Amino acid sequence: MGRAMKELPLAEVYKLIEPGPVVLLTTAARGRANVMAMSWHMMVEFTPPLIACIVSSADFSFRALRTTKECVIAIPAVALAEKVVAVGNCSGEEVDKFSTVGLTPVPGALVQAPLVAECFANLECRVVETRLVNRFNLFVLEVVKAWRDPAQKAPRTIHHRGYGTFSVDGEELKIASRMP
Amino acid sequence: MGRAMKELPLAEVYKLIEPGPVVLLTTAARGRANVMAMSWHMMVEFTPPLIACIVSSADFSFRALRTTKECVIAIPAVALAEKVVAVGNCSGEEVDKFSTVGLTPVPGALVQAPLVAECFANLECRVVETRLVNRFNLFVLEVVKAWRDPAQKAPRTIHHRGYGTFSVDGEELKIASRMP
Repeated sequence: MGRAMKELPLAEVYKLIEPGPVVLLTTAARGRANVMAMSWHMMVEFTPPLIACIVSSADFSFRALRTTKECVIAIPAVALAEKVVAVGNCSGEEVDKFSTVGLTPVPGALVQAPLVAECFANLECRVVETRLVNRFNLFVLEVVKAWRDPAQKAPRTIHHRGYGTFSVDGEELKIASRMP
Repeated sequence: MGRAMKELPLAEVYKLIEPGPVVLLTTAARGRANVMAMSWHMMVEFTPPLIACIVSSADFSFRALRTTKECVIAIPAVALAEKVVAVGNCSGEEVDKFSTVGLTPVPGALVQAPLVAECFANLECRVVETRLVNRFNLFVLEVVKAWRDPAQKAPRTIHHRGYGTFSVDGEELKIASRMP
């Protein structure tokens, strides 16, 4: 992991994914790391945290994810928005996206896919369900280790509304609720 | 549909769901409508639009959704935040949540589940995939008709971060992108 990262309790993971931020998904296959931008993901279970996601079979990451059954979901704050779009606009088939875009891969603890040093959270994941891969490119992942960068306080995330238009987290609302 | 609603092209649906807003999910079974709050959902396909969601088997809506295979996903703007939390804090097993919370059910065109008049978008859905229901409570829905309230311009949505804490859409970012 990055030297600045601290372990995040797995029971806290859903709070980062449930709001629906754009994330990066990293894979590593045959010694080669790759990264893609992703917005089609959701929580499936609180703990152990399960996340479903769609990784198109047209994406270069698809084969690595299906083969290795490992990935990292890295969550960027708004300062990385330009890099997130740059990640989405090139293919790992042609370039080393980490060096092209200017992101730093760092080793995780439990999976071969790298963490992204610049992101405020990184989730090491293993694929646990593949029945809907053929029909929908839908993977279910279990988060097996989670990291948080304590230097990034109250990060604002970005939410994709299509064609490079994003909503950035604004005002925070707190309403008394019985729901987790 | 509500008299003020206009049909939204199905190819535009993903722009509303991809950012990850809290939504309401309505069902109707044996003549009785119900509504729940939901944040665990994601796009699966652009067109026809497919949406995956988790509806817990502990929720009263679960049985209606599994039995009727129909629902409506209604998207509330921030002005409805208090009502969204109120929806999450009571059960349709005990009360008529529409009248308790003060939301207006209106008939849809293709499904029995009602639209929510106060929401700025309503998506009529049919269940198209149930293989992951038993293990994960995961349904895949096809949006068969979509509605938009033209009177609600540039609505800001809310994103749940746990226990009644929400991020409201803030600043809009536009970055040239090749991605839809």
